[in-house]
Amino acid sequence: MSEQLHNKRHSLAHLLAIAALKHDPEALLSVGPATDTGFYYDILFSPGKTPTLEDLKTLEKSMRHTLKQNLSFEREAVAHEEAKKRFVGNQFKLAIVEDKEKEGTDLTLYHTGDFTDLCAGGHVENTKEIDPDSFALTNIAGAYWRGDDKNPMLTRIYGVAFDTKEELLQYQQEQEEARARDHKKLGRELDLFTFSDVVGKGLPLWTEKGTTIRRELERFIVDEEVRRGYIHVMTPDIAKLDLYKKSGHYPHYKDSMYAPIKIDDDEFMLRPMTCPHHYELYLRKPHSYRELPLRIAELAQLYRYEQSGELSGLERVRTFCLADAHIICKDENQAVTEIGQALDLIEYVTGVFGLVYGENYWYRLSLGDRNNTEKYYDNPAAWETGENLLRKLLVKRGKDFVEEEDEAAFYGPKIDIQMKNVNGKENTAFTVQYDFCMPERFDLNYTDESGNLKRAFVVHRSSIGAIERIMAFLIERYAGAFPLWLSPTQITLLPVSEKFADTAYTLERILRENNIRVEVDATNESLGKRIRSAKTNKTPYVLVIGEKESNGEPLTLEGRGDEKASFPNIHEAVEFLSKKIRNREQ
Amino acid sequence: MSEQLHNKRHSLAHLLAIAALKHDPEALLSVGPATDTGFYYDILFSPGKTPTLEDLKTLEKSMRHTLKQNLSFEREAVAHEEAKKRFVGNQFKLAIVEDKEKEGTDLTLYHTGDFTDLCAGGHVENTKEIDPDSFALTNIAGAYWRGDDKNPMLTRIYGVAFDTKEELLQYQQEQEEARARDHKKLGRELDLFTFSDVVGKGLPLWTEKGTTIRRELERFIVDEEVRRGYIHVMTPDIAKLDLYKKSGHYPHYKDSMYAPIKIDDDEFMLRPMTCPHHYELYLRKPHSYRELPLRIAELAQLYRYEQSGELSGLERVRTFCLADAHIICKDENQAVTEIGQALDLIEYVTGVFGLVYGENYWYRLSLGDRNNTEKYYDNPAAWETGENLLRKLLVKRGKDFVEEEDEAAFYGPKIDIQMKNVNGKENTAFTVQYDFCMPERFDLNYTDESGNLKRAFVVHRSSIGAIERIMAFLIERYAGAFPLWLSPTQITLLPVSEKFADTAYTLERILRENNIRVEVDATNESLGKRIRSAKTNKTPYVLVIGEKESNGEPLTLEGRGDEKASFPNIHEAVEFLSKKIRNREQ
Repeated sequence: MSEQLHNKRHSLAHLLAIAALKHDPEALLSVGPATDTGFYYDILFSPGKTPTLEDLKTLEKSMRHTLKQNLSFEREAVAHEEAKKRFVGNQFKLAIVEDKEKEGTDLTLYHTGDFTDLCAGGHVENTKEIDPDSFALTNIAGAYWRGDDKNPMLTRIYGVAFDTKEELLQYQQEQEEARARDHKKLGRELDLFTFSDVVGKGLPLWTEKGTTIRRELERFIVDEEVRRGYIHVMTPDIAKLDLYKKSGHYPHYKDSMYAPIKIDDDEFMLRPMTCPHHYELYLRKPHSYRELPLRIAELAQLYRYEQSGELSGLERVRTFCLADAHIICKDENQAVTEIGQALDLIEYVTGVFGLVYGENYWYRLSLGDRNNTEKYYDNPAAWETGENLLRKLLVKRGKDFVEEEDEAAFYGPKIDIQMKNVNGKENTAFTVQYDFCMPERFDLNYTDESGNLKRAFVVHRSSIGAIERIMAFLIERYAGAFPLWLSPTQITLLPVSEKFADTAYTLERILRENNIRVEVDATNESLGKRIRSAKTNKTPYVLVIGEKESNGEPLTLEGRGDEKASFPNIHEAVEFLSKKIRNREQ
Repeated sequence: MSEQLHNKRHSLAHLLAIAALKHDPEALLSVGPATDTGFYYDILFSPGKTPTLEDLKTLEKSMRHTLKQNLSFEREAVAHEEAKKRFVGNQFKLAIVEDKEKEGTDLTLYHTGDFTDLCAGGHVENTKEIDPDSFALTNIAGAYWRGDDKNPMLTRIYGVAFDTKEELLQYQQEQEEARARDHKKLGRELDLFTFSDVVGKGLPLWTEKGTTIRRELERFIVDEEVRRGYIHVMTPDIAKLDLYKKSGHYPHYKDSMYAPIKIDDDEFMLRPMTCPHHYELYLRKPHSYRELPLRIAELAQLYRYEQSGELSGLERVRTFCLADAHIICKDENQAVTEIGQALDLIEYVTGVFGLVYGENYWYRLSLGDRNNTEKYYDNPAAWETGENLLRKLLVKRGKDFVEEEDEAAFYGPKIDIQMKNVNGKENTAFTVQYDFCMPERFDLNYTDESGNLKRAFVVHRSSIGAIERIMAFLIERYAGAFPLWLSPTQITLLPVSEKFADTAYTLERILRENNIRVEVDATNESLGKRIRSAKTNKTPYVLVIGEKESNGEPLTLEGRGDEKASFPNIHEAVEFLSKKIRNREQ
């Protein structure tokens, strides 16, 4: 943000304070900074005077009124003792003054008309520099003084502000679109998943529709991985604590693991990751170099106890299903080749979702920290080699990527696939990791060409990430209008009246036999209402069936975007739909 | 077993005792009963004298020697005091005498030649009645005196015995076949699944091959259920303890549930059943009669903490995946119709596995017990109605079924689908249950035709049971030679020599593109050895590729049973295999 815009936003916070004091002259101000999109002010209102959302318009009006008086912001340097006198009765300002005194920081006041605030500055010269239509108050929420729930709860009033009215309107429009795409909202509206208090927070329950999409995604990724030579396995979701001690995950993941289940002399854990399970499976028999690389994959249910404040729809949950794999490799070169192939798979998968590198996702090389041997496995030479191998691979692939220190796994460096959600929040969607540590801990060996026992290397990778998280991402990306292959209902048949219901059911049977997910809406509602209902549910196609269609005349599929396609008979319509589904068209 | 056979078996136990005393004159006898297939004797041998498996032949020989002396079994009634004198020095016999004394039971001794045993009788008149070739000693194992691990460990010697030599041979052959089919043995040999001590007992890890079979089974049942109007959902494997208290499962299932996971103020449980999860999903919104019956299905991972002695391969595990469903019905009639349709589905599924009603599986009507209101929900009228409805349904279906009291669920009567495994052990494979209790606990309602809120009925059912258990059953049923559609590898290509490897890889690609699971065995082993190896792995088909096949002459698929089928080209072979797979042929 430019300094000029920052100054505008900060000045608007002062104007908000003036409006708040007009609304409640007894209100106590605390702090009012600029933010990335505007400003806020935290205020303690007198009892019964706390404004509601309805009051925001009045406060805005009051701010505009002040703006138009062309008031200047005047600076006054002030001694700490003098400041204390000026803010007598305001515990918050006094606390700030005392802190500054302890730090030895000088104080300044800013005067705007009759109003004075304690403030380090950064303001416009005069309120006339601010376009009265370039800002808006947006929300009210509670906020503890200094973020501590032992302190009094203040009222935070939020505003957004931009240089021009046009920029404000554009921002508001984007926000509205993001809200409409929010997967939590759409998940509820389209009935894809739900939560239950008695089941527990962060534990989604998937409805039929949500499950249908998941099943398509899961089968897609399993089949694609099998096609690429992965061997899919299934391992238990729980294991003895000993396993995670053996892997060394326990101390590192302890905080996010569920508490142990103590029975008899054993302690069982809900697994926070799949790796040690796959290593135990590998260890069931000796292996030859001929079997390597061995690409052990699983759709693995994992459990991490996120703090309740961290939970967010499907994006942050307390159990998730990771499309995970551990590739046992005979040497570093094989590991790097496999990492390249894992990236190929990821690029294929993101391509199926229509994502574009650089725009929707990008690679991040996540490095360790040689000085932090508590967080990272202590083997500087191995880190050096691993990081260089990954960097060389990324450079060779020719795509721009970023590097970030102190973002590696504890057992080695990794390539993270970063994505942004509709709210602009960056997330690691998938990851490919290079591991020189686990093979030692688990004694993962193989017999080489000369019959000698050799230590293996491991590549950890996810192809599609956690199903929950990619679902959240896709719901928002498609704004609920899933491509045909993922749509819970692919086509809705609408008989014009009861007379044509039989034809509809005959066509339904044919579509169903051809594995097309079809619904007949033969309720008593008007045709117009039923068409709208199908579109609200984002069904890709509707087929209206009346006199003509019942008499063998062409059938017309109408798409969500009002595009139409006619077919001489149902079989050609089936062929059209099947081809789109098979090719997973956007 | 006939009294005559029982007497023979019991007499053989005495002859075993005689042989044991010849082997170790200081041995102390305890008890030696007849069993369902023979007899055993529990004996405390003197130090260093405990026989080994190698000694069984000698003991058998010794028994045959005694047999041929045509000894008679002579009964002697004896007072308790007298018996104590006769068995002085044998703590086991003395303990039995004392028990009998306390009970007031009279005692008898049986004399066979010089040998005398304390015994209630049931013997042959003379050892000549026993065919010396109709019995065999089979095993030696440790057994605590009176089954209590605080008591001394005795040596139990097992024998089998039948009326004739032929019957013995037949039994031994059946046993050998059962052993060869044992799913634990085959699971290891065919590398289908494994266990790991550090993961935990009863927690199977599925290899690629086992997972492939599971995936086929799972997709088969999900697709078939969806085709039949089930809605598949996914719900979490854990939930707060509150949920199971709400459902009332907690006190009933407490003993087999894993201990709680305590975090913050919550207690989470690994779910022992799916029902309450589906009810919570149902409760997310109001429902109309038009939506019912609502068939909520899930492949649900469940957790029950079986005692370690109860665990057995895949048959008894500590976590399993149940093909579960809960059908919400508007009234009793709808519930009964749905139960009928659930049985239709079960008969379809068992048909796919080639199972025959009455031979491989049968229905058991499992009833409650009106007097046990602790074990069963207290509502006599509802039990009466429910049991009669199920009985009427079964009678109407016209298949013989059994009735068993005190086998119901705590919430209502059920129809169990009983199966026998290769060892003749009966198990409940699937179950269909009628529930008039849960709808009340969970307030499962719907709006009827007149807009009134009505209480629903619930049908619980499994279509294919627990995937683990049906896998155990199918491994044994097919002795590892799975039908084509379930086989992990469906065809192995064997190039006669390196020269034909390229042709093999070309054919492999074509088969794979047609979704046929194919392997090329181009190792250096001889062709004969490679053919045998494919057959040991029970691969349904092999295709040998040599000069002729490489030159476009017909391709000959050779089946496991040596049957041959020739095809002019690979595409016709693909068509042949695909059709068998599609139809799930046996």
